[in-house]
Parts: sequence; C-alpha cells; structure tokens
Amino acid sequence: MRIETILSPTLFHQIENIDRKVVVVIDILRATSTITTILHNGASAVIPVKEEQIARDYKEKGYLVGGEREGATIEGFDCGNSPFQYKPDIVANKEIVLTTTNGTKCIEMSSNAHQVVIGSFLNLDKVVDHINYLNKDIVLFCAGWKNKVNLEDSLFAGAVACSYTGGEFDDSTLLCIDAYRASKKNLFKALQNSSHFQRLASKGVTQDIAYCCERNVINSVGILKDGKIVLA
Amino acid sequence: MRIETILSPTLFHQIENIDRKVVVVIDILRATSTITTILHNGASAVIPVKEEQIARDYKEKGYLVGGEREGATIEGFDCGNSPFQYKPDIVANKEIVLTTTNGTKCIEMSSNAHQVVIGSFLNLDKVVDHINYLNKDIVLFCAGWKNKVNLEDSLFAGAVACSYTGGEFDDSTLLCIDAYRASKKNLFKALQNSSHFQRLASKGVTQDIAYCCERNVINSVGILKDGKIVLA
Repeated sequence: MRIETILSPTLFHQIENIDRKVVVVIDILRATSTITTILHNGASAVIPVKEEQIARDYKEKGYLVGGEREGATIEGFDCGNSPFQYKPDIVANKEIVLTTTNGTKCIEMSSNAHQVVIGSFLNLDKVVDHINYLNKDIVLFCAGWKNKVNLEDSLFAGAVACSYTGGEFDDSTLLCIDAYRASKKNLFKALQNSSHFQRLASKGVTQDIAYCCERNVINSVGILKDGKIVLA
Repeated sequence: MRIETILSPTLFHQIENIDRKVVVVIDILRATSTITTILHNGASAVIPVKEEQIARDYKEKGYLVGGEREGATIEGFDCGNSPFQYKPDIVANKEIVLTTTNGTKCIEMSSNAHQVVIGSFLNLDKVVDHINYLNKDIVLFCAGWKNKVNLEDSLFAGAVACSYTGGEFDDSTLLCIDAYRASKKNLFKALQNSSHFQRLASKGVTQDIAYCCERNVINSVGILKDGKIVLA
C-alpha cells in the first residue's frame, strides 16, 4: 500500500490516478473534526458545500446550516464550525449542511477519488481500520489554511501513516511521520505555537482545540457518498 | 525574527515582501551541498544557470561547466552534481558554471531577495551565524524534487530553525523542526526511506549522500552577488 501526503491544496494536482486512490481529507481545526462529531451525534448526513450561497439556499429549504469563514460563524447561519454547537438533540436524524474556509473545499476537490474519507484525531484508529479495509493506495490530503501548510493537519497525516509499518511512503509522509513521533505525547502542547492555534485562541475557542486533539473518543468514520458524508 | 519555510517551489508565490527577506536556498542532494564544497575548495565563484544551453555557451567560452539532469551528468559537461568531482586542483581560483534539476532554478527564483544564502548541512552553523548577522526575516526555501516536497531539504530547514529559540515560525517551519528533532541523531538513517536517497542509491552514489549529511565540516558560506555565488 502506497501512502502519499498532500500538504496544501496548492499541491493537490500532483496526485496521479486519483480515481484509484482513497483520499483522507484532513481539516483538524475544525471541519473534519466537526463533521465526525456531527455524525457521531446522530445526524443522518453532512452535506458539504463550498459556496456560502448554496448553503443559504439549503437554509431556505429548511435545512440546519452551519458555516464559517475566517474562523467565525457566517451571519444568519444556525451554527459555526465548533463541534460543541452540534449537540445530539440538535442534529439527530437530520441532514446538516456545512461550509467552511478550507475543509469543505478539499472534500469537493477530492470527489473523483475511489472513496473520500473524513479524517480526525477523534476517530484516528477507526480511520486507519477503514482505509485498511479498503486496501487501496492512500492520499492524506491536508486542507491547511488558505493554501498554506498547517501543523495540525500534517501531524494527523503522520499519525495515520505511523500505523503502517510496511507501507511505502512519499517524502511528505515521511516528514509528517517524523513530526508526529516528536509531538504525539502532547499534541495540544505541540500545537500551541501553530498559526491556527493562535488564530482560534484569539477568538476564545481553546476548548475546541483541546477537543480536536483528543484521540479515539469516537468509534465511527464518515465517507462521501453521492455528495453527502455518511457513516461508513 | 520571523522564519518561514517553503516546502516546494510550487508554494514559492506565498512569500510576501521577498525583497526585505533573506532566502536560504536548500537542495541538500546535491546542488547546494556541491556549491558549498566548490567554494570551500577554492573556486572564486559558482555561476548558477537554469538552462542547459546557457551552460553550454559558457563551456564554449572556456569555463569549467558542471551539470545534472535527473541525477546524471549532462553529456559533454566537465562534471555532474557530485561534490567529489570538484577537487581543489580542478576548481581553485576558477569560476565554475553549474546547472541542476532543482537547485539552480530555485536560486534564480530567489534573486529578488534581500540576500540569497546557499544552505547545506556541511556548513549548518555557518549558515545560521550568517543569517543571524543579517538580522532580517528568513525564508527557508526547499528545492524539493520536481516541485515535490522532499525529506532532506525539509530536515535542513528544521535544523536551521532549531537554532532560533526565540524565533517566530510559520507552521511549515514548526513541522520541519519537529521532524528534525526526531531525525537528527542519525540523518543518514532518517533519509534511507526517502525518494531521493533511493534515486541516488540506485545510481551508486550513496557516498555522496553520506557526505551531504555531514554537519559542520565547512566553515564558510556562499551568497548570491551579481548573479554569482561567492563566499560571504
């Protein structure tokens, strides 16, 4: 099994034969952690949309709509991008529409993959189990921040790749493995100097970061199916 | 002092205000290690050129010309990209022309910087001393391999950044610092799974890799000045 890591959406075009590969979309702070939480809390699906206006159209049709730009909730939307806003009593059995700065864009970019898997530390082992089961070459696709490389997504790529002792890794993946090994004892501390930590902490959402650093507290995994993210 | 790392030439456009920054060009295997060695061995300058034909024009004028594409010496050139080919008796007091797959391109891309510095493990501490002396914001520019991220250039970026305890780092730099910390005890071993190691080893140049992983065996540093790389 070959594992390659795309550290920024700007490098996405380097993937060859994406239709034969499984793409794990990674936006740890916070889109893919939030999507994983929404599904765990009982939603029937998350509909990722790139454009704010499309999300507004869904809202007019009665959907619960969440959205964030630059880390803040979009005005008029039901929720933002914090996993804590999507409690079970709010999301159970509903389809939730979500648009975010980086993560939902990457899900759309990956839609030609053999399968798109939603990655988060919250369900790390479950993500690994699922891609093992699929038994295809893997792309770990880091959403980053506005096309810049970010630390938390890269460390998650390293965490997934660390689980494959016999895998064939590209250099980006080797870099992430080394970095994860140096940071895994205390992820929250490792992220404290990162740009996104500082961006979110300045908005007072440090608890979101602490939550998104938790490993294996959720035992399910989301995949993209017909434009919607559902449990595998 | 702010340090940012560009992990691939494809991400180079993300640098803002390059004219106010010092760019360290990093192509550990092998262009920037070889350039550092050539200057150490007594050459008066290295003239980096992007196009093979321009190098040929220099050769016709009587210059000693080195060049590599895909890791192999260009036909008709005096030398390739191996540091061992540029012995003191060959290069002393001469201007050497060099064209390589990745490194010389990045030197040209960086030419609008406040200063371009040539980075290698061979003179790591000297590179750090020199950029400290310049006291500007720093860009660690990894040449990679054909626009892909590579491990050895990223680890060198981490090695430089590790020397700045009080620096302000972007996330790419934090990633490289973590990775270097996990690898620094045995760089040669850390690189054994990397794509470039395998590419060069398959051509029988493992000794070049071992040499390029040596730290602080050269006590000088090259900088770009009027299109030529000379000792600072």
